[in-house]
Amino acid sequence: MRILLTNDDGIYAPGLRALRRELMKIGEVIVVAPATEQSATGHSVTLLTPLLVTEVFDDADQSFLGWAVEGRPADCMKLALLELLTEPPDLIVSGLNAGSNAGINVLYSGTVAAAIEAAFYRHTAIACSLEYTKNARLDWPKAADYARQVVEQILAHSPAKGSLFNVNIPPLERGGVKGIRVMPQNVSVYEEKFDRRTNPRGRTYFWTSPEFVCHEPHPDTDVTALAEGFITVTPLQFDLTNRPMLAEMGNWQWGLGE
Amino acid sequence: MRILLTNDDGIYAPGLRALRRELMKIGEVIVVAPATEQSATGHSVTLLTPLLVTEVFDDADQSFLGWAVEGRPADCMKLALLELLTEPPDLIVSGLNAGSNAGINVLYSGTVAAAIEAAFYRHTAIACSLEYTKNARLDWPKAADYARQVVEQILAHSPAKGSLFNVNIPPLERGGVKGIRVMPQNVSVYEEKFDRRTNPRGRTYFWTSPEFVCHEPHPDTDVTALAEGFITVTPLQFDLTNRPMLAEMGNWQWGLGE
Repeated sequence: MRILLTNDDGIYAPGLRALRRELMKIGEVIVVAPATEQSATGHSVTLLTPLLVTEVFDDADQSFLGWAVEGRPADCMKLALLELLTEPPDLIVSGLNAGSNAGINVLYSGTVAAAIEAAFYRHTAIACSLEYTKNARLDWPKAADYARQVVEQILAHSPAKGSLFNVNIPPLERGGVKGIRVMPQNVSVYEEKFDRRTNPRGRTYFWTSPEFVCHEPHPDTDVTALAEGFITVTPLQFDLTNRPMLAEMGNWQWGLGE
Repeated sequence: MRILLTNDDGIYAPGLRALRRELMKIGEVIVVAPATEQSATGHSVTLLTPLLVTEVFDDADQSFLGWAVEGRPADCMKLALLELLTEPPDLIVSGLNAGSNAGINVLYSGTVAAAIEAAFYRHTAIACSLEYTKNARLDWPKAADYARQVVEQILAHSPAKGSLFNVNIPPLERGGVKGIRVMPQNVSVYEEKFDRRTNPRGRTYFWTSPEFVCHEPHPDTDVTALAEGFITVTPLQFDLTNRPMLAEMGNWQWGLGE
């Protein structure tokens, strides 16, 4: 099995490296990932600047690891599928991200966007993220082991081409993972704040605060199950049409004046 | 009515200025928009750098126009709602974008992302885009007039809080607009290419090609209706859960080895 691996934390991120080692147990792994951190870049793509590409080799044995792209996660996916890979991959994995991508974070996430981009091209894609906790050392090898187990269990069901999954792993230091739950995406809002400052020249600027908290997640969603210590698996799709509203709007009258 | 206007082409873009003039016919308009072009930045947000903010005034009469933010469209929306506006807006409009945002372009679009961000906060938001055609001079005043008419017709139905709409206007020079159609988002893939080059130092780089064509759009979607010369209105939502797959996966067996 040929596996294409990407992420949004960059090709040198420990989460990607740990997940690569695990995925090498189940297939051949080629990496096409951003050269630098691209957290929270969503589904952005690079139109205005060129995409530089560099071959990267494994530190340990100097084997070919893949390509670093000076672009976004979605750029990496496009370049991998259209230009860099000599044969189409059987599976695409994105991660292992430092920080969960549950709830509306799914829409901010470069990790998930790379998987969605792969699904545009009718590839099966799985985004994997590990919840980040301040002051805890992330156990990447253990988390990557869990991610690989989830990937194998998804593949055992031979999902249709273009299937898309979002996997989140809870903090491992919080007393062990309780199991795996299939959950829908939570859609309730997060509370966040800005830190307003003035620069030495008198101009106002804002820092996005690290506090980004979902106070009232809907029950039985990825956010709640993750908080309870479960690994969550959410099947995704990218049709944003609001179907009930579409049906309602079919009855609206429209007109155009000149 | 208080209207918050943003875009992804930047606060100095002609599409935003034309739409502002039209929206001033139906309410008070405050602009919070990116300082520079942010096309195809999707739902990215700025975590690693500070967001500088500058007050901007109307060239013509020096009246207060709003704030330019050195960040992404979604940053603008967050800052507007959490920090900059003294009162909550009644409506959020994003656009008028130079280039259509139909089909999977909805996911790349900063224009649409700003509207989705507003819907996170349970505001009613409408993204508006004008299809771009090479070598044609875009008739911003006419397109903005159409966009304002569509906005007014949506508001006439008093949509629930958090309602989200995506409006696309066909090229006006192609023989006139045929009417308004409510359509779902097309989800079929676009064909695109990269232009591979070598820089003077021998490094490989790629340019994203301007060719980005949907050869087989699904019938009766935003992409097909727009191509036929209709203004399209698509109600959107941001729950990416694949519900049929979620139901199927409820029967899957899961387990974790240590």
